[in-house]
Amino acid sequence: MKAEIICIGTELLLGQTANTNATWLADQLNQLGVYVYYHTVVGDNAERIKASFQTAVARSDLVLVTGGLGPTQDDMTLACAAQVAGLPLKPHAGSRQAIIDAFARLGRPEVPDNNWKQALLPHPCVVLPNHQGTAPGCILSVDAHKAHLVLLPGPPAELRPMFLEALVPWLSERVTTRLRHVFVKMIGIGESAAETLLQDLIQSQKNPTIAPYASAGQVTFRITQSLVSVDDLDLIEPLLDQIRQRAGAYIYEVGTRTLPELVRDRLLELGQTVSFAESCTGGLMAKQLTDCPGASQVFQGGLVAYDNAVKRDLLGVGQALLDSQGAVSQACALAMADGCLDLFQTDWALSVTGIAGPAGGSEAKPLGTVYVALAGKNGSRRHQAYRFSGSRDRIRLLSALNAFDLIRRTLHEPATPIG
Amino acid sequence: MKAEIICIGTELLLGQTANTNATWLADQLNQLGVYVYYHTVVGDNAERIKASFQTAVARSDLVLVTGGLGPTQDDMTLACAAQVAGLPLKPHAGSRQAIIDAFARLGRPEVPDNNWKQALLPHPCVVLPNHQGTAPGCILSVDAHKAHLVLLPGPPAELRPMFLEALVPWLSERVTTRLRHVFVKMIGIGESAAETLLQDLIQSQKNPTIAPYASAGQVTFRITQSLVSVDDLDLIEPLLDQIRQRAGAYIYEVGTRTLPELVRDRLLELGQTVSFAESCTGGLMAKQLTDCPGASQVFQGGLVAYDNAVKRDLLGVGQALLDSQGAVSQACALAMADGCLDLFQTDWALSVTGIAGPAGGSEAKPLGTVYVALAGKNGSRRHQAYRFSGSRDRIRLLSALNAFDLIRRTLHEPATPIG
Repeated sequence: MKAEIICIGTELLLGQTANTNATWLADQLNQLGVYVYYHTVVGDNAERIKASFQTAVARSDLVLVTGGLGPTQDDMTLACAAQVAGLPLKPHAGSRQAIIDAFARLGRPEVPDNNWKQALLPHPCVVLPNHQGTAPGCILSVDAHKAHLVLLPGPPAELRPMFLEALVPWLSERVTTRLRHVFVKMIGIGESAAETLLQDLIQSQKNPTIAPYASAGQVTFRITQSLVSVDDLDLIEPLLDQIRQRAGAYIYEVGTRTLPELVRDRLLELGQTVSFAESCTGGLMAKQLTDCPGASQVFQGGLVAYDNAVKRDLLGVGQALLDSQGAVSQACALAMADGCLDLFQTDWALSVTGIAGPAGGSEAKPLGTVYVALAGKNGSRRHQAYRFSGSRDRIRLLSALNAFDLIRRTLHEPATPIG
Repeated sequence: MKAEIICIGTELLLGQTANTNATWLADQLNQLGVYVYYHTVVGDNAERIKASFQTAVARSDLVLVTGGLGPTQDDMTLACAAQVAGLPLKPHAGSRQAIIDAFARLGRPEVPDNNWKQALLPHPCVVLPNHQGTAPGCILSVDAHKAHLVLLPGPPAELRPMFLEALVPWLSERVTTRLRHVFVKMIGIGESAAETLLQDLIQSQKNPTIAPYASAGQVTFRITQSLVSVDDLDLIEPLLDQIRQRAGAYIYEVGTRTLPELVRDRLLELGQTVSFAESCTGGLMAKQLTDCPGASQVFQGGLVAYDNAVKRDLLGVGQALLDSQGAVSQACALAMADGCLDLFQTDWALSVTGIAGPAGGSEAKPLGTVYVALAGKNGSRRHQAYRFSGSRDRIRLLSALNAFDLIRRTLHEPATPIG
């Protein structure tokens, strides 16, 4: 099945919004065994939208379209798609009711006139319900080209659940290739070093294939086996064994969990709790852990100790320590973790202090200097120093990531008291 | 000048790498007054690359191409562009020397054979030197279509300086349009309601134009004036006056600042400080404020009071209140803000408590029920209740956004003590 992706929106075209939908959809389709040949971005202009649709249905079997399903005059995806497919637009009762329900949930009994347009769908079509917003998606057959146009909403919070809940089942019935993916996630090694470790495996493998993805501070390898049937011999496990032998020390997950999810799960297994004392990450660690549903069972709370007075008054970091070694120091990180353990009465307390920039660096402690510490109720103490490079955002992300990695490593090994 | 952007690379097409180049280039071109009509992503395949080039030069004056200038067999942009333009590839002496120099700087006297290919350029062309890598860029005339193909390297660290140093001067000589953009950002009103308020303005305006775009909980209108010369009469300010008259209550920014940036700036002006007590947002508010450089001057710290014991023991929320009204209540939000003010000794304390889901909703307090409260050292108390819909992420984002809006409104008006 040949597919392409068309993203509609002047804000994308002008570079005001990053096109995360194309990247996300391409990755999802690729995992499903649907080959993507083009991405296109086009603005809110009926002629150019229709021209893009015509080009696409002529060369691809499946055309995924995002955006332009809103209630405003700029939103013309439904009308353009209906014209290209030669279909009329008709009111769809279920989608009208869904709009009424959505506004009722918001406590607004009156539906603005504009919004009814969102329930005028090409007829016939497969309706894709939107449980996060008022714009339904739909699948149209373009019979002249034996192609399908799939219209999806632009907001990622609406697009992603709709794709996963409604489109994946529809696609699975139509895609004959079956792929099985396993993700191997590593931390503490760079992309090229990781690739070098696995170079001969990457080059010699035809099935399964190994493809690297890099993101800040992590490397993920996707291992993909093409299956003829679900009973095919598992070719991934023997390859995984080889990867573990070479790079086992860096692997934190064979699966799709993030580091915070892994920490949540491990704490749940152990029946233990954690609290955070954050300086440079400024709440990012707490945010990342509470991004995970169920975090409330293991996360008591955290203190964002941004100002030194907060480190002193609420975490009990000594003024003498702050004066002599500074807030960005190993001693301060350890004192923060100790204070956090006292404050929240948790099994573990994790602290971070560092210089995320853009200002604040010095020769002795340049931008990107970060200290992480972990204190356990059992008396164990761990700490780690880092020097990260890059922007403020990147330094904060890497700080949080490596703090989660410190507690992960500790929870997976017997702790060794050092203090 | 009509332009489009073509990004080449299988890693983009498969969604392994986000296409930040298209977004960045589009924004740069837009600011220069070059209209971008399409973005395309195509893989490392000669036939599809050439087809994309042919389509593009036939409909646009300027085609910016990124990627595929590397030394490997997958890199075929130069050869494809030369074929489409009907030009031969010839060794370019300056680029050969630049490659020798680049390897010498890396301490590698031998240039790998592959790399010489990078100095085989279409002839004639305008060479764009690469000071960050070995791949020169170039500008080719495609005379048959009176179009230009501009070839740029894929790595952002090479592309961006090349664009700014070499291409901007070339473009400035050729672009006659000058655009001026102003962004009007609103909160507390939906996209369609906002558009209805401004409908006649949007429809009647030719210059400046008004374009809406929405993100969770916010609406932004982009107002764009085409200028013939920089001395043109300002047509945006009179339009802004009309928009302010109709929708002034919803406008929080005429400019590009985010709500947290605005709150930071207002607190800086007032010389005041803030602290946060977060339950359902779990650190997101602190993270968002500390995303802004300079937040340390106004943000003392925050408490993520995720567990009720933390609300009770560290914020002094009474157990009786928790038992009778629950942690998700207006009374609890107010008590959290009061406790936060005491704990951090700031001028303002902002609190949030709510049900972000996926579990925890009830009939009386469904998923998305959120209470925000603000306490001021001056005795003022504000609070607001919300019922948001959508995913856990969305409810958390909207909670933080509206909490920032509560303090923004308060800081922009004389506070009225209510408690």
